[in-house]
Amino acid sequence: MSNYLENPVQSLCDYVSYPSVSADSNFNDGVTEARNFAISLLKELDFEVETIPTPIHPVILAKRGNPSWPRLVIYGHYDVQPPDPLDLWTSEPFKATERDGRLFGRGAADNKGPQIVHMCALYRALQKNPDLPIHITYLIEGEEEIGSPSFRPFLEDRKEQLKGDMLLVSDTGSPGPDQLVITTGLRGLTALEVKFFGPAKDLHSGVHGGALMNPLQALAKICSSLHTETGRVNVPGFYDDVIPPQDWEKEELRRLPISETEYADFLGAPALSPPPGYTALEAIRFCPTLEFNGFGGGYQGEGSKTVIPSEAFAKITCRLVPEQNAEDISKKVKQAIQLACPNSIRVDVQVKGGGDPYVVIPPGKPGSSGNETPLVQKAFPLIEECVSKEFGTAPIYLREGGSIPIIRDLKEVAGLDALMLGLFTNEDNLHAPDESFNLTIMNRAIDSFEAFFLRLGEV
Amino acid sequence: MSNYLENPVQSLCDYVSYPSVSADSNFNDGVTEARNFAISLLKELDFEVETIPTPIHPVILAKRGNPSWPRLVIYGHYDVQPPDPLDLWTSEPFKATERDGRLFGRGAADNKGPQIVHMCALYRALQKNPDLPIHITYLIEGEEEIGSPSFRPFLEDRKEQLKGDMLLVSDTGSPGPDQLVITTGLRGLTALEVKFFGPAKDLHSGVHGGALMNPLQALAKICSSLHTETGRVNVPGFYDDVIPPQDWEKEELRRLPISETEYADFLGAPALSPPPGYTALEAIRFCPTLEFNGFGGGYQGEGSKTVIPSEAFAKITCRLVPEQNAEDISKKVKQAIQLACPNSIRVDVQVKGGGDPYVVIPPGKPGSSGNETPLVQKAFPLIEECVSKEFGTAPIYLREGGSIPIIRDLKEVAGLDALMLGLFTNEDNLHAPDESFNLTIMNRAIDSFEAFFLRLGEV
Repeated sequence: MSNYLENPVQSLCDYVSYPSVSADSNFNDGVTEARNFAISLLKELDFEVETIPTPIHPVILAKRGNPSWPRLVIYGHYDVQPPDPLDLWTSEPFKATERDGRLFGRGAADNKGPQIVHMCALYRALQKNPDLPIHITYLIEGEEEIGSPSFRPFLEDRKEQLKGDMLLVSDTGSPGPDQLVITTGLRGLTALEVKFFGPAKDLHSGVHGGALMNPLQALAKICSSLHTETGRVNVPGFYDDVIPPQDWEKEELRRLPISETEYADFLGAPALSPPPGYTALEAIRFCPTLEFNGFGGGYQGEGSKTVIPSEAFAKITCRLVPEQNAEDISKKVKQAIQLACPNSIRVDVQVKGGGDPYVVIPPGKPGSSGNETPLVQKAFPLIEECVSKEFGTAPIYLREGGSIPIIRDLKEVAGLDALMLGLFTNEDNLHAPDESFNLTIMNRAIDSFEAFFLRLGEV
Repeated sequence: MSNYLENPVQSLCDYVSYPSVSADSNFNDGVTEARNFAISLLKELDFEVETIPTPIHPVILAKRGNPSWPRLVIYGHYDVQPPDPLDLWTSEPFKATERDGRLFGRGAADNKGPQIVHMCALYRALQKNPDLPIHITYLIEGEEEIGSPSFRPFLEDRKEQLKGDMLLVSDTGSPGPDQLVITTGLRGLTALEVKFFGPAKDLHSGVHGGALMNPLQALAKICSSLHTETGRVNVPGFYDDVIPPQDWEKEELRRLPISETEYADFLGAPALSPPPGYTALEAIRFCPTLEFNGFGGGYQGEGSKTVIPSEAFAKITCRLVPEQNAEDISKKVKQAIQLACPNSIRVDVQVKGGGDPYVVIPPGKPGSSGNETPLVQKAFPLIEECVSKEFGTAPIYLREGGSIPIIRDLKEVAGLDALMLGLFTNEDNLHAPDESFNLTIMNRAIDSFEAFFLRLGEV
């Protein structure tokens, strides 16, 4: 085995240097390079690696150990978000740069850093116990940031190979280097792309203004109809299947070392604006959303251009909570948009990738089934102990707002409950300029997972 | 005198080749080149040329003849609209190309072609009568497409030099090569740029979605509040000063050889959508508008990006009719936007250039003053006669929807009534890809103006 993984920061710098933006085919080379780098690390860990083609970016499937041992599946993704707006980055997004105890670069926290944490910890554990009696399956996909369209078919295809005793994921958040979170739930996601078509060509707004509906006016009219005045989503049936949070979940949330005021300061918005009945910190975990991720149409340059554009677009995603269903919600939103469209405009709604929400109730918490696998029953208290030792505080059990749709898929298809230890923080600027990964968390987490892997292997 | 102006098509090709986009400072060199080309043509016509600096792009002021002669002022603009979206052009926007009896290129019709018409006609008239007893002042500005912000101060500064007997402009539209229009009114214009500010940085819409107002959601909410369900502008006081059209104006409109259905087909929109009480062909002339010319914010690329953008923008222009006032309307719109803004968003409204609407009632039409200058009283019937001869039909007297704010300014400051003969058509794609100028109109118009200039000089 090589000793490449002895240097976590260098490993992460190299991983970040491959621009694996899955949403944009101009980055296809970078996606391939990042995948090959992840494969090389797994080979250094003595995994048997298979690359499974998909219609877009292949999945890495890797295994080590005896299938009769307790079976752990580790998930990650080698793709990253687009880096734009580029001019807001302090250093280049694909040239990892260390500043103030952080490593800056697109994908540093989401999800390349946490993958390096797992691999480095495993490297150390296997150095101490090369025959560590846990069967480990690595699943690293390349389409997470575009909604994992190929992952479910891949799972269905390989489900017999993927069955196991527990899933380990670190693709969620924590408050900071002194307080980690074990994530117990993830919001689901459904994405829609809406196009608004007006006149056949762009028109002079003086010569023709007043004769016809402007596609931008239609965009504003239709999109504004999708929320009520109080900020709730105004799509018929949208909230039908929403389950409110349990009391213990709200209590755990109170342990979070951040107030609404501190959260507002962090976001830097003029005011918080959660839906009625929820605080902002509750809303991001327990409430569904309909969010506009991009509007465009007409003149985008400097100054003014008196044009009626021929078309416009809106990019929309909804975050879903239990027991909302991605397919059902996307149908309802699509229908609401079509119904709101005036006859002077043509609208086209494309439903893109999505996934259902997910919740795991840790063994022993109110509402847990008691039917968990022995590995799950051992792992939750063990990670709590290992994290408490390295980070100085016990982790909080908390749902979070982000989505990893495939966690739900892995539960449905392969029966895996997920242990999710959050390693990134709000300060890491996920999906935004100046993304970074906290190196204190990185080092403490490697120590925690080294102990966790070694002790998980003890009979 | 050189004989460059003996070849109108070549002159126009050269003029188009200078990319004089006034809205974008990246095109500053092209603006300078176009200005220098226009100056060289005026010098070939033996004009005395002055270049007057402004804060942005200088004004060309040129004169010929004896100040005691009847004084004609001719207006044009050497700047053009931005060429984007570039991928929708059949040939390059700044490489004029002849196809199907048209010359394609940005600015071919707006306003470089009509300027070449005037200059070529004047060239021929002066060849036949070098001492043509009309004092002519040329005013060619470079900021028309950005709302002529420097033109009014220039006029105030030079008003004594600009006083005259009539203004001649060809920067308006006509139905086609068999039917011209003498434009009797222009809508005013006011432009606003609105920025919507939310969180301090772009945010992950999973991690933070639900906590705060998305600037795109605010954009949709605020912009959609600016129109009623029936399509009227929903800004308090917007219609207070609107004067309905006179009966003779509606009658002239009936002579227009185009039906609502043909107009709808030309526009290619799913349906026309004029405000209540007006046909589309009436609305574009007699009704004010509030039009969205550009929306932007969030992810603009391929695929999806789950971001809550930090900011968004909307570019707005209003077209105004008599007796609306640009300053008054921009204040009212700004106030409506500010009032509609929720406290969870910060909005910034910048009022850009604008101008008031303009109407001239031709001598002899109902409502005309009878106090017109002798040059105006001679010119209107004369142009009607010259156009009827070359085009085969008498021109229609009609207001149009576009704006040339400085026409109103020239009336107010220098007392000039405008004779506006429309030389571009709907098929010319003004402000849009594949702009072109009809060469049949060009040739007939040169013949018409040659006769007009010669006969205008006869005692």
